[in-house]
Amino acid sequence: MEIIFFGTSAGLPTKERHTQSIALKLEPYATDIWLFDVGEATQHQILHHSIKLGKVSHIFITHMHGDHVYGLPGVLTSRSFQGGEGKPLTIIGPKGIKAYIEASLTFTHVHLNYPLHIIEIDQQLDLTIDQFEVQARMLNHGVPCFGYRIQAPSTPGTLDVAKLKAIGMEPGPQYQQVKKYDTFEFEGVTYDAHQFKAPDKLGPIVAVFGDTKPCDNECILAQNADVIVHEATYIEGDKQLANDYHHSHIDDVLELITRNNVKHALLTHLSNRYTKEDVKAIDQQLKASHTASFQFVHDFDAYQF
Amino acid sequence: MEIIFFGTSAGLPTKERHTQSIALKLEPYATDIWLFDVGEATQHQILHHSIKLGKVSHIFITHMHGDHVYGLPGVLTSRSFQGGEGKPLTIIGPKGIKAYIEASLTFTHVHLNYPLHIIEIDQQLDLTIDQFEVQARMLNHGVPCFGYRIQAPSTPGTLDVAKLKAIGMEPGPQYQQVKKYDTFEFEGVTYDAHQFKAPDKLGPIVAVFGDTKPCDNECILAQNADVIVHEATYIEGDKQLANDYHHSHIDDVLELITRNNVKHALLTHLSNRYTKEDVKAIDQQLKASHTASFQFVHDFDAYQF
Repeated sequence: MEIIFFGTSAGLPTKERHTQSIALKLEPYATDIWLFDVGEATQHQILHHSIKLGKVSHIFITHMHGDHVYGLPGVLTSRSFQGGEGKPLTIIGPKGIKAYIEASLTFTHVHLNYPLHIIEIDQQLDLTIDQFEVQARMLNHGVPCFGYRIQAPSTPGTLDVAKLKAIGMEPGPQYQQVKKYDTFEFEGVTYDAHQFKAPDKLGPIVAVFGDTKPCDNECILAQNADVIVHEATYIEGDKQLANDYHHSHIDDVLELITRNNVKHALLTHLSNRYTKEDVKAIDQQLKASHTASFQFVHDFDAYQF
Repeated sequence: MEIIFFGTSAGLPTKERHTQSIALKLEPYATDIWLFDVGEATQHQILHHSIKLGKVSHIFITHMHGDHVYGLPGVLTSRSFQGGEGKPLTIIGPKGIKAYIEASLTFTHVHLNYPLHIIEIDQQLDLTIDQFEVQARMLNHGVPCFGYRIQAPSTPGTLDVAKLKAIGMEPGPQYQQVKKYDTFEFEGVTYDAHQFKAPDKLGPIVAVFGDTKPCDNECILAQNADVIVHEATYIEGDKQLANDYHHSHIDDVLELITRNNVKHALLTHLSNRYTKEDVKAIDQQLKASHTASFQFVHDFDAYQF
């Protein structure tokens, strides 16, 4: 899978960073694209990428702050003209997202040419979408704010070809039966397929966090994740101040990923108080004193996993 | 004064053109900036210009289509952090603009730190703002849509220094009295000031049109204007088709400016069906067969008058 960052700023856009938006390419598990948050001008950023709006099947909103949703009306409208016609779109987000979208589209005389389905989360959500397991859990940001944990579908384990040959089964279409099912028949004998293949391989786990100060639900979302996307609004200075503003301090994030066995963290939502040089210098300092795997991201950075 | 184009596309943004937004710098008559329409990512464009959001005192909206208003919530929010604190802002637009803004700000938990005043136009509006005469007239675009005509304040005519010297008045602070008022006193005699200066110089006139097919109100707005900003969605092809979609054909625009003695027309709102080369070629063809003064504009083009 691949994560692409269309916006990595906090609160306001800057000359270098747009406000929040992330695309998740589901390949090789599916061909759809999922978006997480849609800051203003997300559609403009997408114009400069190979991703097409028509392939976006789901949009997940973490919370109802402008830097996370002001691009939504534009994305919804333009999707009608960019391959989205007739293709359903589902939006998942906190309460208020439905009324916000309906008001934006109604007052601007928009009639979408595809079915739009909006799911508002109350406290939490567990959902299976095309075999992807999605968990939404409430974070702590002063307004209702969610993090999303996504586990890709499991894939069948590798076949033990030597063992299959030992019972006389040569490579061919029958191997698919062994791979897909719990049992298979060969020359009148029923076999336990699990004896002839490695255990199913669990799909990778990604967690995308909305803005938040540290909270217990963060651990549920981050546990053993292959990659997390987390805010890094305060990458230095007073931890208490960061938390008072319902944000995480960089120390909180590093603790989260270390405690929860996260393989890699992509740090976004950077405050405009930091220059490029600041971020680079702080990154070097942090990497000298921490073993956790992480990186600060910029607009159009991509991460495959 | 100066007009700056932040967005010149029609309907959707393209890689080269953002959706509609125009700034009017009022200098030398005033230091404020007025915006006309606020397409998505207007605030991003402004980041790349010397204009500051805090100097924007009035925003005029032509109509409630997304390519003219989706940048409004972002501009209003960011203005709080970019010099706008405590400085009143007035928004003028069609019915629905107030509810759209209130919904956008309320659902996204925004509290502006400056007074926001919203004027909804019913049929038409005549207003004086800091000695600028503003007229809004209804156009014909399928939804309520307005064009705005602005006349800058008049400036006092040049003094007839020879004549003033002839009555014994040498250049000095008293000349301001002659310039400013209808009468003045000098050495016990009251004079008619108009005998000693040229007539007041009328301020320049600019008209900014929303999308429209030709209609009578266009003439009221365009009459004797120094410059107009007009849509050019259809710069070739079938005139009837353009009008059926409630847009102007380029022939309509050229007729408008010729008939109404418009000094210069800035043509924006270009459809993404035309490449840069198309526009250049059509511009050359049109200029070969028309005497009217006009130009097709691009993002960040500026025009002084």
